[in-house]
Amino acid sequence: MTDIPGYDTIRWDNDQVVLIDQRRLPEEEIYLSCTDYREVVDAIRTLAIRGAPAIGVAAAMAAALGALRFPHTDIDGFRRHFRDVCQVIGTARPTAVNLTWALERMMSLVAANVHPDSSALKTRLVAEAKAILQEDIAINRQIGVLGQELIHDGDTVLTHCNAGGLATGGYGTAVGVIRAAWEAGKKIHVLVDETRPILQGARLTAWEMMKLGIPHTLITDNAAAALMANGKVNVIVVGADRIAANGDAANKIGTYGVAVVAQYHRIPFYVAAPRSTFDFTLSDGSQIPIEERDPEEVTHIRGRRIAPEGCRALNLAFDVTPHGLISGIITEKSVCRPPLPQSVSALRQA
Amino acid sequence: MTDIPGYDTIRWDNDQVVLIDQRRLPEEEIYLSCTDYREVVDAIRTLAIRGAPAIGVAAAMAAALGALRFPHTDIDGFRRHFRDVCQVIGTARPTAVNLTWALERMMSLVAANVHPDSSALKTRLVAEAKAILQEDIAINRQIGVLGQELIHDGDTVLTHCNAGGLATGGYGTAVGVIRAAWEAGKKIHVLVDETRPILQGARLTAWEMMKLGIPHTLITDNAAAALMANGKVNVIVVGADRIAANGDAANKIGTYGVAVVAQYHRIPFYVAAPRSTFDFTLSDGSQIPIEERDPEEVTHIRGRRIAPEGCRALNLAFDVTPHGLISGIITEKSVCRPPLPQSVSALRQA
Repeated sequence: MTDIPGYDTIRWDNDQVVLIDQRRLPEEEIYLSCTDYREVVDAIRTLAIRGAPAIGVAAAMAAALGALRFPHTDIDGFRRHFRDVCQVIGTARPTAVNLTWALERMMSLVAANVHPDSSALKTRLVAEAKAILQEDIAINRQIGVLGQELIHDGDTVLTHCNAGGLATGGYGTAVGVIRAAWEAGKKIHVLVDETRPILQGARLTAWEMMKLGIPHTLITDNAAAALMANGKVNVIVVGADRIAANGDAANKIGTYGVAVVAQYHRIPFYVAAPRSTFDFTLSDGSQIPIEERDPEEVTHIRGRRIAPEGCRALNLAFDVTPHGLISGIITEKSVCRPPLPQSVSALRQA
Repeated sequence: MTDIPGYDTIRWDNDQVVLIDQRRLPEEEIYLSCTDYREVVDAIRTLAIRGAPAIGVAAAMAAALGALRFPHTDIDGFRRHFRDVCQVIGTARPTAVNLTWALERMMSLVAANVHPDSSALKTRLVAEAKAILQEDIAINRQIGVLGQELIHDGDTVLTHCNAGGLATGGYGTAVGVIRAAWEAGKKIHVLVDETRPILQGARLTAWEMMKLGIPHTLITDNAAAALMANGKVNVIVVGADRIAANGDAANKIGTYGVAVVAQYHRIPFYVAAPRSTFDFTLSDGSQIPIEERDPEEVTHIRGRRIAPEGCRALNLAFDVTPHGLISGIITEKSVCRPPLPQSVSALRQA
């Protein structure tokens, strides 16, 4: 599914949702099999699966699992049950809008249903969840096709967090762009920000780069600015968790700092994301809800305490990069160019 | 010595150099007793003791230990021995100029000696190393006195890495400024960057803040920019490992990115350092040697692997902040204000 031999980010398998447990990467490649939608919600909440597009796929599959677990056939009971299921899934994580997007797509099928027996609808919901996965992979490939034009032969590309196959149904958004450039024969080198606190760069992006055979170097988040100052970074590509109507983009904490330093050094800074990551109901990024996670993710690393006992910590999971710092947003439809409020508005109409 | 009850960064004790093993903080407060100067060199190299002023003190004490170990009294043999000892100490770490400064001070005593018996000179060298420690603490206090004027009641102060009592003979440079403001009765809050890869912020600065009872919050390095954007940071104070004649300052990796984002948000960014951290022989920061340390400090955290087996990593230990991004350099003599090339030149003459 992900086109990297040997793993699937998430798949529907025999009425179970099977996903690689990203908390245990890169040490162990272990799959979780979820038979209850609440297990999928837990997997999203605890970051066994993460990345905005992957969260969207997981939410759709969780909804399909929830639908299957309704033991009756009456449509009114099913509607109530399904609404409750989607409400629970909807609370899993706040920032990635793909979660809401996927649930709305599943709920619209239920709303459109006219049959008094819910059995066919359940089958239809499972098919829809599977379709969302397949579409996501196709969308990523198309993002790669459009985005790879922005990467030049010989470039060193910096990326933050993981917007790879693991963050999506497969292939990746930011990593998809990098991968498409590599597959087009461009000799590139990737600088991988480790991305504290969860270390998605060190654990996941580096793991994907190794599987794909793309030359790369892992760095601390702290080193990115110095490497930009030293002329070692030609272009930056990151993913996004939610993009407002004016092009302001929420992404993993630390992205904003990278964008400010990139502009200071006139290094192109691109965001790669599917259209489902846009939230056109928000006029700007200040309205994007920013998840604050458990301080233990800061005071501990991989289970080991690094700060003094009792030390207070703050754990903002995302930040917002204003559109003025973004050189372009690469979607499956087109690359939105500055001024982003206009080009994102055009994307919305398209 | 450090004025925080219960620990000394480094002390001369019964012809041994005793230092708290900072690699094991905050979990354990364990002291290393070094009887051979090469043990002190190892302690510097492996970061059991770190921070430019503390490295200076340790280098001086290592030189004194080396002097004591010379079993004869003839002055010519002693001179040769002492030169070799200082050469070994001089290679311990490349970036902090305080190491060279302290060794030159010790060597100048040997050069000035006229007595044919080296016994008195050995005693004099031990006294000089102890004096360097005491002076460093006094200098830090004076940096605090001058620097605390720049911190206002109610400020939230961000700091990067550890420029505290542990990084000096005692009291601290950047943390000394913060501490002096706190002791002056100003209600402040400190944001502590965790400072990957070695986590001096999470492990050492947070530990000092807790011992001192100064309100603080630990954050990932990635969160600093977002907090600046959100108006949560009023002022920034960091230390330095070497400052060129024009005011360009090398400090812990990540400092440069903080400085760029600070300027973007017009947040004052101060460097606090003793005069011994200036290297007037370098016209600008591009000439400062930047230490590249073992990639394992990036691929592993506190002994635990976080990246895939075989993953290539780069570990730059320092970066250089150009003087144009610095609002002032707080020394024990005065606060150098922009334009720094002129005010640093004035400091040199003073």
